[in-house]
Amino acid sequence: LSEPREGDAQLAERVLKGDRRALARAITLIESRRPDHQEQAESLLARLLPHTGQAIRLGITGTPGAGKSTFIEAIGRHLVAQGHKVAVLAVDPSSRRSGGSILGDKTRMQALAQAPQVFIRPSPAGGTLGGVARRTREAALACEAAGYGVVVIETVGVGQSETAVADMVDCFTLLLAPGGGDELQGIKRGIIELADLVLVNKADGDLLAAAKRARADYQAALHLLRPATPAWTPEVLTCSALHEEGLEAVWQTICRQRGALEQAGELAARRARQARRWLRTEIEAGLLDALRADPASRRLLAELESEVEATRLLPSAAARRLLRRFLAGDAAKDRPQQTCTS
Amino acid sequence: LSEPREGDAQLAERVLKGDRRALARAITLIESRRPDHQEQAESLLARLLPHTGQAIRLGITGTPGAGKSTFIEAIGRHLVAQGHKVAVLAVDPSSRRSGGSILGDKTRMQALAQAPQVFIRPSPAGGTLGGVARRTREAALACEAAGYGVVVIETVGVGQSETAVADMVDCFTLLLAPGGGDELQGIKRGIIELADLVLVNKADGDLLAAAKRARADYQAALHLLRPATPAWTPEVLTCSALHEEGLEAVWQTICRQRGALEQAGELAARRARQARRWLRTEIEAGLLDALRADPASRRLLAELESEVEATRLLPSAAARRLLRRFLAGDAAKDRPQQTCTS
Repeated sequence: LSEPREGDAQLAERVLKGDRRALARAITLIESRRPDHQEQAESLLARLLPHTGQAIRLGITGTPGAGKSTFIEAIGRHLVAQGHKVAVLAVDPSSRRSGGSILGDKTRMQALAQAPQVFIRPSPAGGTLGGVARRTREAALACEAAGYGVVVIETVGVGQSETAVADMVDCFTLLLAPGGGDELQGIKRGIIELADLVLVNKADGDLLAAAKRARADYQAALHLLRPATPAWTPEVLTCSALHEEGLEAVWQTICRQRGALEQAGELAARRARQARRWLRTEIEAGLLDALRADPASRRLLAELESEVEATRLLPSAAARRLLRRFLAGDAAKDRPQQTCTS
Repeated sequence: LSEPREGDAQLAERVLKGDRRALARAITLIESRRPDHQEQAESLLARLLPHTGQAIRLGITGTPGAGKSTFIEAIGRHLVAQGHKVAVLAVDPSSRRSGGSILGDKTRMQALAQAPQVFIRPSPAGGTLGGVARRTREAALACEAAGYGVVVIETVGVGQSETAVADMVDCFTLLLAPGGGDELQGIKRGIIELADLVLVNKADGDLLAAAKRARADYQAALHLLRPATPAWTPEVLTCSALHEEGLEAVWQTICRQRGALEQAGELAARRARQARRWLRTEIEAGLLDALRADPASRRLLAELESEVEATRLLPSAAARRLLRRFLAGDAAKDRPQQTCTS
């Protein structure tokens, strides 16, 4: 029983030294659904946790066609040229084991992936948003422990994935293409208000004027929205990932935002709030999983849901009925009564 | 045991006939925390439920100083004059039993409250947002069953109460005062994107020009945000509650919005989504309540929370530890083992 623990210690040591293979192996353990792997991952992460917290956690979402991959590749190369180590992860609850739709395409980000200071990992495969998000959070911590100073987390915008990513990063960036007022097509409600930074990409050639107009429009719109913290008012910048223009200004803004949050004590406060919400999410998800793992409760829940949708039953009454059954004992009675025989 | 049920049947009948005293009594049962009252309320609501669904459910939130009470009183009088029956409820998780901060002040809405076609009820006292919101939802259903064709639900904007109200109404209205770009001070992030209708109040006298400018600004800003449904693009109107100006245009817009949602099948879809989310919220809250009702789990949760906030423990690991304890038996072992003795 002590052997796998020693394995963890060695693996942790190699991760902490920045060994990319060890990091890949650690993330494979984190993403595995095998109970023994999960136990190993938990013990490994406990060892890595004290060595996390220094990285800049950068979230990126964007409209389809905004040029997200090109932007991530360009900013990644830009940062590597300055000596930074960059990890790129993704949250995509729609990705399947065989060929994830994000970062999985070998032809994308090819140039970036070849740099030794870069670690790119596609979204963990399938599962619920909660499961995918948890594994990405944990993978991000492993990357931090391995010395990656910038951890970029991309979201494809399926389900509530933008909210999940915004809730695990220090700076949440929304990437748009200039589109004459249609910039936000494909962006869900509420997302712009999560943004610490809005970037209008493709500010080059024929689109330069449109990009500048879009920037002014968003600047005005953001002025009407309330910032998440008095410490930082979201900014809108233009850039061209294709021509590698404006990237240093983007990076300087990200650094200024971090400085502002740190100085106001808001970085630590934001991370503590994120940790509390993550804990609460995990507890709720775990409780619901336990409920669904009980076949009779699962059947009852499905019945109650259709009754509730058809307005034949009040949600509060339905919940009481389900919980009475699940908590008060029918499920408990099915458990082996070991206390009787011992 | 059948007597209270008969009482419910009689009470339900009186509510359905539009008896205001019976409605007040029904809501008192709904708001009571006594288990026998709660049982009565559940059975009463089951009888009323088939007679609900016809009302226009109108949510109203607004910045402090936007003139919310004056507006609700004015639109209420306007609707009563047209022959409508209007109920006004509120969600205020901060209100205390003794003197709710909202609608509880007897000097407010005095003129409106005297009309026989009006039913005004302050926010249920204290408790969590979930509890307050549930009781308001159920009170709203009782009002609908009593024949109130317009049910106005006000929120004071404490905690997540705007989101809770937006999730129980057909038309969510944001009331602003013209303030030269500072209109949204006091409005939390994300609220404007929940609005189906934005009203710039106080469009009179010296503020008329500012109100018109604010209307144009919000019109432009909303154009950049994505509407909740293709069936309805949020509109911005000006009005003066004090001078009773623009109220008919507001009401016509509310009716158009309802017509648009109905025609697209979106009203039924929205209500079904709201019911599903309400059920899910109730189940999660009930499971967390059960966890907190176990003293050892409650203590452990508090410990784990501080470990997590201090980054000494991963939220996922903390949740697993707590759930293992709560679900796998320590709590279950404390239950009487009746199967042994029978």
